[in-house]
Amino acid sequence: MSHGVGASISFGDRIVKLLKEKRDIKPLLEWIKPQDFIPILERLPKDDRLSLVLSLNDDVIEKFLPKLPAEIVEEVMFGMDRNRFIRIVSNLPADELSDLVEKLSPINRKRLLWELPDWKLNEIKPLLSYPPDKVGGLMTNRIPVFFEEAEIWKVIREYVTRTKFDEYDTNNYAYAIDKNGKLKGLISIRELLTSPRKLKLKDVVQPPPVTIKPDADEEEAARIVASYDLLELPVVDDDGKLLGAVTVDDVVDVVISESTEDMVKFGGVEKITTPYIMASIFELTKKRVAWLIFLCLIEVIVAGVLSFYGKIISTIVALSFFIPLISSTGGNSGIQASIFIIRGLAVGEVSISDALRVLVKESLTSLFLSLLLSPLTFFLGFLIAKNIWVALTLSISLILIIFTVNIVGSLLPMLAAKVGIDPATISAPLIATIADLVGLLIYFTVATILLF
Amino acid sequence: MSHGVGASISFGDRIVKLLKEKRDIKPLLEWIKPQDFIPILERLPKDDRLSLVLSLNDDVIEKFLPKLPAEIVEEVMFGMDRNRFIRIVSNLPADELSDLVEKLSPINRKRLLWELPDWKLNEIKPLLSYPPDKVGGLMTNRIPVFFEEAEIWKVIREYVTRTKFDEYDTNNYAYAIDKNGKLKGLISIRELLTSPRKLKLKDVVQPPPVTIKPDADEEEAARIVASYDLLELPVVDDDGKLLGAVTVDDVVDVVISESTEDMVKFGGVEKITTPYIMASIFELTKKRVAWLIFLCLIEVIVAGVLSFYGKIISTIVALSFFIPLISSTGGNSGIQASIFIIRGLAVGEVSISDALRVLVKESLTSLFLSLLLSPLTFFLGFLIAKNIWVALTLSISLILIIFTVNIVGSLLPMLAAKVGIDPATISAPLIATIADLVGLLIYFTVATILLF
Repeated sequence: MSHGVGASISFGDRIVKLLKEKRDIKPLLEWIKPQDFIPILERLPKDDRLSLVLSLNDDVIEKFLPKLPAEIVEEVMFGMDRNRFIRIVSNLPADELSDLVEKLSPINRKRLLWELPDWKLNEIKPLLSYPPDKVGGLMTNRIPVFFEEAEIWKVIREYVTRTKFDEYDTNNYAYAIDKNGKLKGLISIRELLTSPRKLKLKDVVQPPPVTIKPDADEEEAARIVASYDLLELPVVDDDGKLLGAVTVDDVVDVVISESTEDMVKFGGVEKITTPYIMASIFELTKKRVAWLIFLCLIEVIVAGVLSFYGKIISTIVALSFFIPLISSTGGNSGIQASIFIIRGLAVGEVSISDALRVLVKESLTSLFLSLLLSPLTFFLGFLIAKNIWVALTLSISLILIIFTVNIVGSLLPMLAAKVGIDPATISAPLIATIADLVGLLIYFTVATILLF
Repeated sequence: MSHGVGASISFGDRIVKLLKEKRDIKPLLEWIKPQDFIPILERLPKDDRLSLVLSLNDDVIEKFLPKLPAEIVEEVMFGMDRNRFIRIVSNLPADELSDLVEKLSPINRKRLLWELPDWKLNEIKPLLSYPPDKVGGLMTNRIPVFFEEAEIWKVIREYVTRTKFDEYDTNNYAYAIDKNGKLKGLISIRELLTSPRKLKLKDVVQPPPVTIKPDADEEEAARIVASYDLLELPVVDDDGKLLGAVTVDDVVDVVISESTEDMVKFGGVEKITTPYIMASIFELTKKRVAWLIFLCLIEVIVAGVLSFYGKIISTIVALSFFIPLISSTGGNSGIQASIFIIRGLAVGEVSISDALRVLVKESLTSLFLSLLLSPLTFFLGFLIAKNIWVALTLSISLILIIFTVNIVGSLLPMLAAKVGIDPATISAPLIATIADLVGLLIYFTVATILLF
């Protein structure tokens, strides 16, 4: 996901500029695709933002409203005529509306639910009872479901009628249930429409290749949809009752947000809920400072450890020149080891039961890596320190450090997965800081043994 | 994308164990879903792997073959009866087969293309002419396309017939073209089937909301599909001629592989083409060692710089205790700043034209962060060094370092995007190592000014 720097955004920049200059942009608006309003709105001051939204048609707003950050949604909610807002919101598909409702602050959520018409409330209520990051919150319940004993011609007639009234969010499969609501099978709409009209639905449906529970994680659904190449994944409860379906296009959003979320965690920051450009300095600081202070405190411990070796350093100052090399090489190697495992666990290529295999692989890789790096640092260390013992300390410590840090860096995410913590919370700065502590302890221990 | 540690894999572990013990697993095989064979195969030794594949039915192999790593595909290609392999491969959809062909080594690619039946070769040839990471390689050309002047009833008749012969890979839209092959519009199959039979296709189609060129990046297609909530994205050439379509389920795979690829880059390793569990020690070492040596050489420069301050260190040894704190806090803060920008650029929330805004935001955030961290380190530094000047050096340097490193960390990915390098190649270890160099220069400069 590289260059998201499309022409649309620079076009947006021009719009933002024109708006700031209070020029009339009406004739330009029809050239903008609904979704491209999102980056434009994020870059506008609050008042211009609202007046731009108010000047758009309902059907345009409908298309981007559910994708806006919560703050802008709330601005629109309060800045727009109530009836108009409720009308727009009621036109949204149930799964998009439930996502939007869940984004709002608790008080605004209550207000909106209170004002929604009953028929819409009934549509989204079942979706709201699940936490937002679970399958139940992602699925739609507006899917074509029919009794398995129904004749094909009747099913088709009902499907076509309901489609005309726009009652379905999906158009891939028709689902067959028994009289208890249990999912018995599914058939692609295409095949349904070409099936012999006199058969019963149960004669043509196939058992679902895979189903999922509503309390499963969104990511689990994404993983299944991707690996089975599904267009829709049926959601059933513990008794096999059909509750709804997750569609592949909803999954795309999950995958994008989850995967960048993992990257953000790996960078050692908490997820920001607003886009970076909109986020306040206060929010940005808040998301970063806890980690920085925590890691800083560990480094204070490292400083304490080093003060313990003060005498050694004052005798051979050259030892201190290589403190950054020791800690950074350890950190970098540890980050590399952990990234393979975090990614492997996320994609499903590595499982917890592979721990032993990972241990062997990392041990051997460490051996190779240190065989390449150790002579190099011995030579360069000698050039700078002009002391063969310091160079020897450096190169021997590096072997031990690479080995230790790779084992720690690879097993830490597996350990996290084992005890039920998300492996992606093992961040690059955490690994680097642990490597600092371990690395310098090894370095000065080796120095003590060799030099004194 | 967290816990990919499904029940299927531990089931796979049991299969692997049974196979290694040469026990008969035939009765178990029908319980395994086709896609779940992938992790099982990756964990098996070469010979067992092949004999397991050979014992499966063609239609099962078909479902997982295109998703296997290139190495296993080549093993199967040479271990299986040629006719059987060609039969299986010919049954694959054109886009999956072209992906599979592109995965193979050049020599095996030629051999396979040579052996393919002509009709299949003609199907995939247009797809092969595009580089594998471009839209042209991702799209399918087996889509329902009709002349715009055709009457609806004829279109439906043809669509139903061709569907029965399984000629289409997609089932979302029917496309209307003019006599030059230009895309004039599209209509959902659902609506097509319920349209008045006597109208012409051009009377019911809608202009496509957005199209893409075949030489655009796959990620660009993924971004558009996600932000427009599309089921299919039509691919047209410069003259507007319809070439094919990219479907949302193909995009899911792109998003997953691209996003984990970004994470791998951020961890400072090159992408491994085989799954971690299968990758050889040699491959793992190769993907890591170049980065480690490069960063190690920068740290040798840092050591050289420090040797320049040798006299200062030998006078006040306590200064050396805080080298890890200085470099790690700078590194961590820089990693945090860069992750926001890399993610923002990838998702399209931040554009190059936002550079000034980013600069302001990072400057103010740096101010806040250093106001929180500086007094803390002054206090703790004094506790350890028992020297107020060292503590003062520490806390003043930290302010300057956080400021500098955050600016560098946030602008570096933007600069990369500006000159056309993928911002995701700015890795955590690179930022950390730059922070080392900058941080220690600032630290010892401040020390020289304050202490001497």
